[in-house]
Amino acid sequence: MTSTTAVTAGAGWDPTTLQSRYDEVRSYTETLAAPLSPEDQTVQSMADVSPTKWHRAHVTWFFETFVLADNEASFAPFQDKYWFLFNSYYEAVGPRYSRADRGLISRPGAHDVGVYRSNVDDRMHDLIARLDDGALTKLASTIELGFHHEQQHQELLLMDIKHVLSRNPLQPVYAGRPTAESTPDRLGWVEVDGGLVEVGHEGSRDGGFCFDNELPRHEQWLRPFRIADRLITNGEWWEFMADGGYRRHEHWLSDGWAKVTTEGWEAPFYWTEVDGVWFEHTLHGTWPVNPGLPVSHVSFYEAEAYASWAGKRLPTEAEWEHAARGATASTTDVPTGNLANTTSFHPEAAPPASGGLRQMFGDCWEWTSSAYHPYPGFHPPAGAIGEYNGKFMSNQMVLKGGCALTPAGHTRASYRNFFPHQSRWALSGVRLADDGAAA
Amino acid sequence: MTSTTAVTAGAGWDPTTLQSRYDEVRSYTETLAAPLSPEDQTVQSMADVSPTKWHRAHVTWFFETFVLADNEASFAPFQDKYWFLFNSYYEAVGPRYSRADRGLISRPGAHDVGVYRSNVDDRMHDLIARLDDGALTKLASTIELGFHHEQQHQELLLMDIKHVLSRNPLQPVYAGRPTAESTPDRLGWVEVDGGLVEVGHEGSRDGGFCFDNELPRHEQWLRPFRIADRLITNGEWWEFMADGGYRRHEHWLSDGWAKVTTEGWEAPFYWTEVDGVWFEHTLHGTWPVNPGLPVSHVSFYEAEAYASWAGKRLPTEAEWEHAARGATASTTDVPTGNLANTTSFHPEAAPPASGGLRQMFGDCWEWTSSAYHPYPGFHPPAGAIGEYNGKFMSNQMVLKGGCALTPAGHTRASYRNFFPHQSRWALSGVRLADDGAAA
Amino acid sequence: MTSTTAVTAGAGWDPTTLQSRYDEVRSYTETLAAPLSPEDQTVQSMADVSPTKWHRAHVTWFFETFVLADNEASFAPFQDKYWFLFNSYYEAVGPRYSRADRGLISRPGAHDVGVYRSNVDDRMHDLIARLDDGALTKLASTIELGFHHEQQHQELLLMDIKHVLSRNPLQPVYAGRPTAESTPDRLGWVEVDGGLVEVGHEGSRDGGFCFDNELPRHEQWLRPFRIADRLITNGEWWEFMADGGYRRHEHWLSDGWAKVTTEGWEAPFYWTEVDGVWFEHTLHGTWPVNPGLPVSHVSFYEAEAYASWAGKRLPTEAEWEHAARGATASTTDVPTGNLANTTSFHPEAAPPASGGLRQMFGDCWEWTSSAYHPYPGFHPPAGAIGEYNGKFMSNQMVLKGGCALTPAGHTRASYRNFFPHQSRWALSGVRLADDGAAA
Amino acid sequence: MTSTTAVTAGAGWDPTTLQSRYDEVRSYTETLAAPLSPEDQTVQSMADVSPTKWHRAHVTWFFETFVLADNEASFAPFQDKYWFLFNSYYEAVGPRYSRADRGLISRPGAHDVGVYRSNVDDRMHDLIARLDDGALTKLASTIELGFHHEQQHQELLLMDIKHVLSRNPLQPVYAGRPTAESTPDRLGWVEVDGGLVEVGHEGSRDGGFCFDNELPRHEQWLRPFRIADRLITNGEWWEFMADGGYRRHEHWLSDGWAKVTTEGWEAPFYWTEVDGVWFEHTLHGTWPVNPGLPVSHVSFYEAEAYASWAGKRLPTEAEWEHAARGATASTTDVPTGNLANTTSFHPEAAPPASGGLRQMFGDCWEWTSSAYHPYPGFHPPAGAIGEYNGKFMSNQMVLKGGCALTPAGHTRASYRNFFPHQSRWALSGVRLADDGAAA
Repeated sequence: MTSTTAVTAGAGWDPTTLQSRYDEVRSYTETLAAPLSPEDQTVQSMADVSPTKWHRAHVTWFFETFVLADNEASFAPFQDKYWFLFNSYYEAVGPRYSRADRGLISRPGAHDVGVYRSNVDDRMHDLIARLDDGALTKLASTIELGFHHEQQHQELLLMDIKHVLSRNPLQPVYAGRPTAESTPDRLGWVEVDGGLVEVGHEGSRDGGFCFDNELPRHEQWLRPFRIADRLITNGEWWEFMADGGYRRHEHWLSDGWAKVTTEGWEAPFYWTEVDGVWFEHTLHGTWPVNPGLPVSHVSFYEAEAYASWAGKRLPTEAEWEHAARGATASTTDVPTGNLANTTSFHPEAAPPASGGLRQMFGDCWEWTSSAYHPYPGFHPPAGAIGEYNGKFMSNQMVLKGGCALTPAGHTRASYRNFFPHQSRWALSGVRLADDGAAA
Repeated sequence: MTSTTAVTAGAGWDPTTLQSRYDEVRSYTETLAAPLSPEDQTVQSMADVSPTKWHRAHVTWFFETFVLADNEASFAPFQDKYWFLFNSYYEAVGPRYSRADRGLISRPGAHDVGVYRSNVDDRMHDLIARLDDGALTKLASTIELGFHHEQQHQELLLMDIKHVLSRNPLQPVYAGRPTAESTPDRLGWVEVDGGLVEVGHEGSRDGGFCFDNELPRHEQWLRPFRIADRLITNGEWWEFMADGGYRRHEHWLSDGWAKVTTEGWEAPFYWTEVDGVWFEHTLHGTWPVNPGLPVSHVSFYEAEAYASWAGKRLPTEAEWEHAARGATASTTDVPTGNLANTTSFHPEAAPPASGGLRQMFGDCWEWTSSAYHPYPGFHPPAGAIGEYNGKFMSNQMVLKGGCALTPAGHTRASYRNFFPHQSRWALSGVRLADDGAAA
Repeated sequence: MTSTTAVTAGAGWDPTTLQSRYDEVRSYTETLAAPLSPEDQTVQSMADVSPTKWHRAHVTWFFETFVLADNEASFAPFQDKYWFLFNSYYEAVGPRYSRADRGLISRPGAHDVGVYRSNVDDRMHDLIARLDDGALTKLASTIELGFHHEQQHQELLLMDIKHVLSRNPLQPVYAGRPTAESTPDRLGWVEVDGGLVEVGHEGSRDGGFCFDNELPRHEQWLRPFRIADRLITNGEWWEFMADGGYRRHEHWLSDGWAKVTTEGWEAPFYWTEVDGVWFEHTLHGTWPVNPGLPVSHVSFYEAEAYASWAGKRLPTEAEWEHAARGATASTTDVPTGNLANTTSFHPEAAPPASGGLRQMFGDCWEWTSSAYHPYPGFHPPAGAIGEYNGKFMSNQMVLKGGCALTPAGHTRASYRNFFPHQSRWALSGVRLADDGAAA
Repeated sequence: MTSTTAVTAGAGWDPTTLQSRYDEVRSYTETLAAPLSPEDQTVQSMADVSPTKWHRAHVTWFFETFVLADNEASFAPFQDKYWFLFNSYYEAVGPRYSRADRGLISRPGAHDVGVYRSNVDDRMHDLIARLDDGALTKLASTIELGFHHEQQHQELLLMDIKHVLSRNPLQPVYAGRPTAESTPDRLGWVEVDGGLVEVGHEGSRDGGFCFDNELPRHEQWLRPFRIADRLITNGEWWEFMADGGYRRHEHWLSDGWAKVTTEGWEAPFYWTEVDGVWFEHTLHGTWPVNPGLPVSHVSFYEAEAYASWAGKRLPTEAEWEHAARGATASTTDVPTGNLANTTSFHPEAAPPASGGLRQMFGDCWEWTSSAYHPYPGFHPPAGAIGEYNGKFMSNQMVLKGGCALTPAGHTRASYRNFFPHQSRWALSGVRLADDGAAA
C-alpha cells in the first residue's frame, strides 16, 4: 500500500526546485483535506483505514523524523507524544500507537495538525535554504522520498475517506459530480510476443525516481500472450452477477469462496441494491451504477473468479509491465496523465478503441496473478527507512497502473502496488489476459 | 444505565414552569458539551460508549419522537435519517443504527447537532405554549420523563467522554482541577434493625417523579445488619492490592477471576503505574492517586472481592435503601445535593464522622449484592416508551446513591441504577456491610 | 451445576452401610457409561460438556484427593498427571488441565479409566474397613459428600452425552425407547398464601444431607401467589412458536433477544424441523415431538419469554420452595421418586390432575426468576473442598426440582441448581406462576 | 496439502498388478493406524487436523465415490450418511460435514470404519477382477489417483496424530525410539548455473504419475545461484535462538512478526523448555532436542527469518527443482528412497558430505520462496475430481522434497506440496540458497 524506500539518488535538484516541489506536494495534501470537517477527519471506519488528520500528521512526522531530526542544529520534536502517535510501522524508530485505534484519538484535532504541519514546513524551508551542495546531494533523495511517501498517502487519504463516508446513512458527498451514463464498447485484445524480457525500473525511460521494490531490473521468460485492450466494465460485471457469478463455487479460489459465504459478498464493495436498482457509493455521491465505467473496488478473489467465469485469466505482473511499455507509443494513453484532480475522483469510461491498449494508467489499480515477492537480487536498504518493502512481501498480490486517485507524477510501468487478496476498499479493477495464439 | 419509563403523573406543572425546566435541562447538556471539540464529540472509544454528539442528538430525538410526533399539527421529522441514527434501543420505533458503530458517523457534525437541537427546542416551545390544561396534564408526564432521560444522558456523556479521553496518550483534561491530597479517617459502622421494611418509591417522601422500575413499593424481611458510614477509599484499596488482592483467587467469584486473568486487572480501571507511582485518570487530568478519596471505577467483581478480603460483604439493595432513608435526618448528607457542577466531576473526601452515614449520595454509585430484577408486581407500561426497564433485567447488578457526575435533582433513595458485573467505566464505588450483632 | 460442599455431618453411618452405599453409587456410574463406546466416551462437543471418561475419572479423583490423600498410611497418587488432568475447578489443589480441551485427551482411554476406578475402589474399601468410630465420624461426611458429588456427575454425564450424540448426523441412540404420544390436559393453578415463610434446608424434614448453599435456613416475606399445577408442554410451546414467539422482541429480555437473533433460536434446543415436521433428539433416539410431554432444553430467556407471552411470570425460588413443601402431602408426587432409571431418561407426561401440584420433582429442572446468590448469613467453608458454591454465585439463575436424569435419592425441595441464563443443554423446563388474587 | 487430480493415464496396468498395488496401499494405511486406540483415532486437536478414523474412512469414500459409484452394476452407498461425513472439500459432490467438527463424531467408531473399509475393498476386488481391457484403461488412472490420494492421507494421518499426541500431558509415544544424538557437520554449498531451464513434470524421467499442478512443463529463466548441501539443523537453529532470532523484528516479515508476538513463538512448534533443557515431541516420544538432526516443524515465516538472519535466502521452487534434478546423479540421495517405514518417523542426520546435495528427499518438506500458483497454461480438469488443485492456489507457499512421513514411491522432483505461511504442524524444514557468484 505504501512504500518508503527510494533507491535512486535525488540527482538534479537545486534548493529552489526542491523547495518549490516541497510546497507543491505539501499543499496538495491540504487541498484534498479541505472539503472534510474536523469530524470527518477523525473517524477510522475499519482497521485498514486511517483518519484524514492522521495521514496529514504522519506524512509530516516523516519529514521531521527522517530529515529534520539528524539535520537541524538543535533538534527537538514539535511534541514528544506525536513521535509515538504518528509513527506508522517503523519498528526501528520505537514503539508506536496501535493502528486499529487511530480513530480513538480526538486530540490533536484537525486544526492542531495544521499547526504541526506549518511548524515542520517552516523548519524544512529553513533547512533547505541553508543546504550547501554537498548536503543537498546527501539530503535531496530523502526529501524526494518524502514527496513520494506523501503522494502515496494522498491516494490513501482518498481511499480511506471514501470508506468512512460509505458507512454513513446520510450518503455524504466528498466533492464533485458523477459523469454521464455510458455503455461499454466491445472488448478488444492485443497480442504480445513472449521470449526473454526485462522487467523492473529502468532509469532513463521510467524517470529518475523509484522505490526499492522496483529493482533490480532483471530478465523473465514469457510465453506469447494476449491482453485486453481495456478494463472490465460495470456492465460486464452485471452479466457475471446475473449468471450467478457470486453463487457458483466452481469459479472461486477456496479462500475466496470462504469470503463470499461468510461475508455475504454478492456485488462489488460499494454497490447496494435498493428496490431492484444497484447504486454505487463514490466520492461524488451515491448514484445508479454506470454500465460504461470500469468496475472498481473488487478484490483479487472477485477478479480471479470473473476471469475464470469469462474463460480467461489475469495477467502476470511481468506480462502487464511488458505490455504497458510496448503500448505507450501506440495508444493515446499517457502514463503520467489522466490522474486525480479536484473534479474527478472516479475512473472514467475508456476512450474509443484504437487498436492499442487503453486505460493502462490512472483508472483502476489492476490486479495481476503475481504474488508480491522480492525481485531476484533484491536486498532492502539498511536502517529504519528501509524497513518497509521487504517486510510486507507475503500474502499480497501485485497491482499495476495507478488509479483515479493517484496524484499526478506518481505513476509508472514499473510501480508495484500490493494488497491482500481480500482487499476491496482500494480502487482496484480488472483487466483480462489469455494465453497467446502460439501457446 | 438509562431508564425511560415514568409512572407518576406530571402533577403540578403549568406551561411556564414546564418551559423553564425544559430550558434548564436542555441548556445544561450544552454546558457539559461546551469544553469538547468537534473531534472529541465524534469518538466512540468502545461499544459501551457513545459519542458526545450522539448523546446530544439522541435526547433531542426523544422529544421529537415521543412528544412532537403525536402532537404537532403537521409533524415531519427534522431529518428522516436521524430517526434511524439516533434511536438507541427502542425496537418498537423501528430499525436503528448499530450501537457499536456510532463512532463511524462523522455527519451530522457537532454543529449540525446543535442546529437539530435548536429546531426541536423551538418546536417544543411552540407546543408547550399552546397546551391547554387537559393537554398539559396528558403531555407533562412524558415531557418530564424527557427531562429525566436527558439527565441520565448528561451523566453518561461525562462517563463516556472520560473513557474517550483516557485512551489518548496526550492525557487531555476535560475541565477543572483535582482536589488536594487527603487521607482517610477511620471507617465507622452504623447498626440498623431488621424486620419487615418497605422499599421502592414513595410519592410524598421521594418527590413526585420516579421510573417504573422503582415500583411497586413493597415489603421485604431484613435481618439486622451493619453498614459502613462511608465509602472505601483509594488508600484502603492500596492495602488490598498490597496484600495481593488481585492475585488471590480465593476472594473472587469465578467469573470475576476469569476477568482478572484474561484482562490483566491489577488496579481500578483508570489507574496506571509509572515508575512505581500510581496515577489516576480523571476528568480534571491525570494525577497521583489521592488516598483520601473514594475508590472509583471498580467493577462489581472487584467490589465483591474487596469485601471478601475485608471479611465483610456488600449490602443488599433493600438494606442500602432502608439505611439511606433512616440516615437522612441524622447526617448532613442531602440526597439531592452534593452533585455535579462545572467545577467538580470527581468524588470528594468524606466529611468528618458524625455517627451517621456519610457519602450516601452523589459521590460514587454503590454496588449492592442484589441482581437487577423486577419488584414483585412489576408490569412494564405498554408501548415503545415502556420498552426499557423490563428488558434489561438480567445479568446486571443494582447500584444506589448517584455519583459526582449525576445532575442535581436526579438522586433519590429508591433510584435503581444497574450495570453488568464487569463494568468499570461507570463511576462506581464500594460501601461495605455486615451481618448485625443479633444475627 | 455441581456442588461439593456438604455441611451436615454424616451422622448414622457405620462401616458396613457406608461401604454398601459407596458400592451402590460407584457402580451406577459404570452402569450409565456401559452403553457408550470408547469413542463416545472421548468426545467433548462444546466447552460446557465433559467427556464421559473424564467424568468417570474426575469423581474418582475426588475420593483420591479429598479422602485417600490425607488418610492412607503411605499415600501416592495412582498417576501423577491424573492429578492435573482430572481436577475440575479447585484452584487451591493446584493447576489443572484446560476445561475446553478435555476432548483432546485420548489417553487414558476408557479402559484405563476403569483401571483407575478399580484401584481407588480397592483403596477406599481398605480404608473404610479400617476406620474406627472416631475416624468414621470424621471421614463419613466427606465420603458422603463424594457420593453426592458423583451423583451430580451422573446427571451431567447424561446431559453431556446427550449433547455429544446430538451432533452426530447418524442420530445415535443412547438407550431405551420413547414413550407413546400423549396430549396435555388443561393447566390448573394452585393458590398459595404469602406472609413470612422459611426457606432453606431443614434437617429433619429434608433428610440428613445438604450442600452449603442450601443454608442458612432463613425467613422471606412472600405476597400471595398462584403456581401452575404442572409443567408447560411441548404442545403449548408449539402455540407460542406458532404465534411468533421467537420473532416478537417485546416478549424477550434484551440479552435473550440478542441470543435469538445472533444464534438463530427458533425452537427448543434439541428440536429440528424436517419437511415441516418437528423432531426432538432424546437419549432414546430422534422422534417426532410429543405434545403431551413437558417442553425441555429451553433457556431461562426462553422460559421468561414464554411466561411474558402467556401473561404470567416465573416463580421466585422462595415461592417454588414454599409451594413444594406444602404440596407434598396433597399430591401423589414424591420428591425422591419418579427419577432416572435405565429405562427412562426423558421427562414424562403429567399424571391426571388432582387439585394439587404435579411434576414438581424429577421431570425437568424448573427455571425460577431468582438469581443464584448466597442466602443471608452464608459463609463458604474453608479449604479447597469449600471452593465451589461461593464462587459461582454470579450470572446464574436458580432451578428447582430435579429432572429425569437426576439419580434416585438426590432430590429435595431446598436443592439449588443453577445455570447461566442462556444454557440450553441442561434438562430444564418451565412452570408458570402469577400474582395471587389478593395481590 | 493433498491433491487429487491426476493427469497422466494409468498406462501399463493389468488387473493383477492393479489389484496387488491396491492391496499394498490400502494395507499400509491400516498398518499406520494399528498402534492407535479407538480414543486416539477419534480426537481432532485443531481444525487443520483430522481424526485417524476420519482419514481411514475418507480415502475409502474416495474409491466408493469416484470409482464404484459409476461402475458397479447396482450401486448403493455403504451408508448414506457416510457420503456426507467423509467428503472433504468437494463442493460438486454435495454438502459435507463441517471440517472443524470432525472430532465431535464418535460414531462410526474405529471398528465400524474397518468394516466400511473391508466392504469397499471387497467391491473394488470384484470390480477390478471384472474389468476388460477397455474398461481397465479407462478406470486405471482414477484408481491410481486413489492410490496417491491415500498415500497423501497416510502422511497427513501421521502429521495429525503427532499433533494430537502432543497435546496430551502424558506424552504418549506413537511408535519406535529416537535416534542417537549427533552433531551437525559443516554446511557446504553447491553452485548451479542459471539460464533457461525447464520445470514441471517430465514423464519418462519422473515416472508415469503426476498431479495436475505439476504441469505443464515449461521454461523459466534463472540467474546462477548457490544452494546449501543439506538442511539446517537443530544445532544451527539454537544459534539463531541464542542470538535473539525470535525477538529481532528486523529479520521477520511483518505478518510473521505478528505471529511471533501474538502467539508467543520462541522455538520450533514441538519444542518445550523444561528447567533450561529443550525437549522435542516426536512420534517416538519426547526427548532432548538432538543437535545433528534437521530442524523441523517451522513455519515459512520462521524459515524466512532464519535465512535473513543467516544473510542468505530460501531457494525459489524452480531453483530447487532444477538443482534437485542435476543433483541426483552426483549424490547418494535417491528420490524415492529414505522414506517412512515403521521404525523411523523422524528426519535423520545428513550423510557425510560428498560434494553434492544431501537430504533433498524424504527428511523434511523444504520451504521455497515461491507462492503456490498455477504453472503457465495450467487448466484444471473438469468435474468434481478436478476441484482440488486450482482452488487452493492462493495464500500458500510451495514446499519440495517429501519428508520422513512420506510413503515410499510418493516423492519426485516436480511434486508441489503447499501450506500456508504460518503452518507449523507439517514436517517442514529449511534449506538455504544464495545468489550465485556471477550474479
